[in-house]
Amino acid sequence: MLVYGKNVARDLLLEHKKVKKIIIQDNFDDKEILSLVEKEEIPMKRVSKREMDHLSNGVHQGIILDIPDYSYMDLHELLEDDTAEFVVLLDHLEDPHNLGAIIRTCEAAGVKYIILPKDRQVQVNATVMKTSVGTLENVHLVSVSNLVNAIDQLKKKGFWIVGTALENSVDYRSIDYSGKIALIIGNEGSGISRLVQDNCDFLAKIPMYGQTNSLNASVAAGIMIYEVIRNRK
Amino acid sequence: MLVYGKNVARDLLLEHKKVKKIIIQDNFDDKEILSLVEKEEIPMKRVSKREMDHLSNGVHQGIILDIPDYSYMDLHELLEDDTAEFVVLLDHLEDPHNLGAIIRTCEAAGVKYIILPKDRQVQVNATVMKTSVGTLENVHLVSVSNLVNAIDQLKKKGFWIVGTALENSVDYRSIDYSGKIALIIGNEGSGISRLVQDNCDFLAKIPMYGQTNSLNASVAAGIMIYEVIRNRK
Repeated sequence: MLVYGKNVARDLLLEHKKVKKIIIQDNFDDKEILSLVEKEEIPMKRVSKREMDHLSNGVHQGIILDIPDYSYMDLHELLEDDTAEFVVLLDHLEDPHNLGAIIRTCEAAGVKYIILPKDRQVQVNATVMKTSVGTLENVHLVSVSNLVNAIDQLKKKGFWIVGTALENSVDYRSIDYSGKIALIIGNEGSGISRLVQDNCDFLAKIPMYGQTNSLNASVAAGIMIYEVIRNRK
Repeated sequence: MLVYGKNVARDLLLEHKKVKKIIIQDNFDDKEILSLVEKEEIPMKRVSKREMDHLSNGVHQGIILDIPDYSYMDLHELLEDDTAEFVVLLDHLEDPHNLGAIIRTCEAAGVKYIILPKDRQVQVNATVMKTSVGTLENVHLVSVSNLVNAIDQLKKKGFWIVGTALENSVDYRSIDYSGKIALIIGNEGSGISRLVQDNCDFLAKIPMYGQTNSLNASVAAGIMIYEVIRNRK
């Protein structure tokens, strides 16, 4: 996985994180970073700005780092963890800022597992790493091919499935969250898909009083996650 | 104010928003957008990619629009509005995604005023417009030179000032929010400044159970805003 920028580079190098390779622009001259690279003995290559732009879509600040891909967990590992009482599922989120902020909220709220689909879903990238500010290490991301199948398996383990929806839903404050809860966060534009909604035990609605009928996905997730843990801890 | 990108251009043009001038890259050929520009009779100039990159930091998709700057409201207008019972203050936020998401949450929660300092605070820009998804028109942004002075004036109007802090604070669920409330959201890194904290009537803490001791600013704002309106509407 390629990540870029001076702050990201400095953080990874100072924390002695595994970096496979570093690519820097021919005229890059940040002395602090260059001395860290030397100290960590990481293979380094200088290339032209044009090549850098091509690798990173242009926002690299002269440095690109190749780090190991994030390793996702398998669903069966989650299902075998009997201490898991509250998990979050993402129904095809698109925005890395949202994924990063949700990881951070889960970590703060003590949620240890986030389930996300393999396809048509933003995965862990440089922006997610930055937005989750180091919390990614304390939360397990579980990758699944099929959300509905994952929901089925969670139900068999005694989880109640809670989604959010504008229609056929009840006030989010009126639901009993005392059991094992799997909370689903919907896509930024289209919300939770119909098929996933049909598999929910409860559909919750956060009341809104303006012209807009939705919140930012990570804000809605924050409100719902803190509602679930409101009476638990 | 310069804003950029095809989606932004399409939205502004379709909604007949005031656009002062359009700058496009010499080889820009999106037929839908070009025909909208022609229909709206907006002055247009073609320039090189190099000049476009210089104007926009490189993420323009070939089109830059010059639109009127956002007009902020003066504090005295807010103070004269006796229907204002819940306002949000921002203590030097830096991230435009957070400002945009907070505007969106305020609009959804029925909060009509957001007070923000003139300096060292992210202002309305292209990213804020995009993240607030059209809700900016229903919320008044009030620009002030001095937050503490604004807090003083709100207190004289009967507002209770609520901030968030890790120390000397109480559980956010234990505060009585039934009066007129001014809620302060702190900076992403440093939180609410000492001087502003000293001027708060209540300091609230959102409980956290992980290693991190803070939430994303817009997520924390969402949880607090929905807590304030919990028993009001």
